[in-house]
Amino acid sequence: MLKYLREDIKTLKSYEVNQEEFRVKLDANEGIEWMDGKNRYPDDSCTILKERLANKLGKKTSELLIGNGSSELIELVMKAYLEYGEIVVSISPTFSMYKLYTIINKGVYEEYPLKDMQKLDVEGFMEFVKLKKPKIIILSNPNNPTGSIISRENILRIVEDCDCMVILDEAYIEFADVEIQDYTREYKNLVVLRTFSKAYALAGIRLGYMIGNEEIIEYINRVRSPYNINTITQNLGLEALDNEVEIMKNISLIKIERERVFKKLKDLGFKPFPSQANFIFFKGKETLSYDLARKKILIRAFSGELKGYYRISIGRPEENDLALKAIEEALNETGHN
Amino acid sequence: MLKYLREDIKTLKSYEVNQEEFRVKLDANEGIEWMDGKNRYPDDSCTILKERLANKLGKKTSELLIGNGSSELIELVMKAYLEYGEIVVSISPTFSMYKLYTIINKGVYEEYPLKDMQKLDVEGFMEFVKLKKPKIIILSNPNNPTGSIISRENILRIVEDCDCMVILDEAYIEFADVEIQDYTREYKNLVVLRTFSKAYALAGIRLGYMIGNEEIIEYINRVRSPYNINTITQNLGLEALDNEVEIMKNISLIKIERERVFKKLKDLGFKPFPSQANFIFFKGKETLSYDLARKKILIRAFSGELKGYYRISIGRPEENDLALKAIEEALNETGHN
Repeated sequence: MLKYLREDIKTLKSYEVNQEEFRVKLDANEGIEWMDGKNRYPDDSCTILKERLANKLGKKTSELLIGNGSSELIELVMKAYLEYGEIVVSISPTFSMYKLYTIINKGVYEEYPLKDMQKLDVEGFMEFVKLKKPKIIILSNPNNPTGSIISRENILRIVEDCDCMVILDEAYIEFADVEIQDYTREYKNLVVLRTFSKAYALAGIRLGYMIGNEEIIEYINRVRSPYNINTITQNLGLEALDNEVEIMKNISLIKIERERVFKKLKDLGFKPFPSQANFIFFKGKETLSYDLARKKILIRAFSGELKGYYRISIGRPEENDLALKAIEEALNETGHN
Repeated sequence: MLKYLREDIKTLKSYEVNQEEFRVKLDANEGIEWMDGKNRYPDDSCTILKERLANKLGKKTSELLIGNGSSELIELVMKAYLEYGEIVVSISPTFSMYKLYTIINKGVYEEYPLKDMQKLDVEGFMEFVKLKKPKIIILSNPNNPTGSIISRENILRIVEDCDCMVILDEAYIEFADVEIQDYTREYKNLVVLRTFSKAYALAGIRLGYMIGNEEIIEYINRVRSPYNINTITQNLGLEALDNEVEIMKNISLIKIERERVFKKLKDLGFKPFPSQANFIFFKGKETLSYDLARKKILIRAFSGELKGYYRISIGRPEENDLALKAIEEALNETGHN
């Protein structure tokens, strides 16, 4: 499906990497080894990591693309699909990088507000899309920072009815009470992004992946930089996949803690937003994050139109306790206003 | 100097990262630690690595930008400076990614041929630039794959006289018989790229850096993805800077071996190009790389207009010996044609 692809990319021949077996490798100017084989460029195709992921997901390796965080993958879709001045549509509020990446990639960003900062009015959204005629729709699901989720039915309706590419950024999907499933075999205009930064708790290694129809993955791969994932990150990704039991345990713990923090915030007089992610979004007095930072407790404070809104990540029980205690103290000192 | 910068980037406010001290960090949805603190996002500013590099180079940290290989840094300059349809000029032959990155970033690539694939006719180049009016000139110096170098005088003449940004990609500069120096304090339109992939022999960790005027670095930093350099790469970069003696030893060895391989290729009847890098460019019969690959010896074979040209990296003496022996055998079997 060449439809939607940038004209220039339709004929682009990407950089070729030699992956032949060797006794002597003098084809890539890699210099003299002095640190455990790290003079070699990484495996450009992330072969083993893709095989392990494909196996876990019930996919072929050709349906996957690996990124330096899912950030890189968002940009790759834009690089492949977004012609100059074309529109990217998202919801609002959402992850602020979507807008920045659109501008950087010479597109125009348009956002459709969530109802009460939470619910997507799908009818209204579809009308908005008809009006704006985007090349790309990007949706964070569950949504950062609100924690709300768009139902599978509505996602599929958008994918089916909108005449454009849809990026579904599922960075937080493992924390949602839904069956995890992608529909990229059914819909060529859908790509799904996942990450090792959240549920896998490996933000430090920068590793994300894309699932898509294999034809689409081949196109998007054309605009990827060679050797984008370093060797150590590839290996640590494999190590993480060997420790899924540990990961699952932490996800369960976070979901339990999420309910506890939600309830406590409510008891303290806030109106927290119900969350399907590993954080809770809520409104507080404008000094709250400063009051907490003085106690060396960091939560995310937003600015601009979201001034006075906060997002607290769910951590270990003892971390959550310290944060909740500090919030309670801040309230006791100065109240809600 | 806002000149040359893309209009959209002049007002772009980049993603903000909270780098405050903490006891409890619940501002970035990083999940529950299970692998040595790797749940934390990397230091977005690469603070310690930049300090160490700045110290080595006699720079301020604000004159540096760190990239996921210098590849990422090439793209960052294009993202910041290249408006839709604007021209990028380079020489030919050169690193093929320059053209790909230009297309990906919606520019138009124009190349000026080296004389006899080796020497830059600066007069001719300046005329070419006047005609093409590029927004960016990018030069690989020493040049990949020819190994030739443009003199400091000519580089500075280009930087002074051309009305555009100049990217000087010095990936191989440590192998050249020149004093290593950048002129980014004198010239705001010049940025210099270096890498840990070649002389530092750490291609596997993906680490490059840019030196530029601090005002220019601030602009280019606006289009950088947050957390682009993972934690482990930052740490290994520091480890490399602790081992400069080892690195210098390997550079000397490569330079000695480069002369030996050059002489041997000549003795074998090739016309190798003199090289200031860690590789040698030469012409051979069209089956040469296949003959070598059968013996599991990999050298770089080019295609298209460079069909029949080869680039051999300089490795350890024993690797070079094996490669030279295999080349000699290939010649004995079928001759030069």
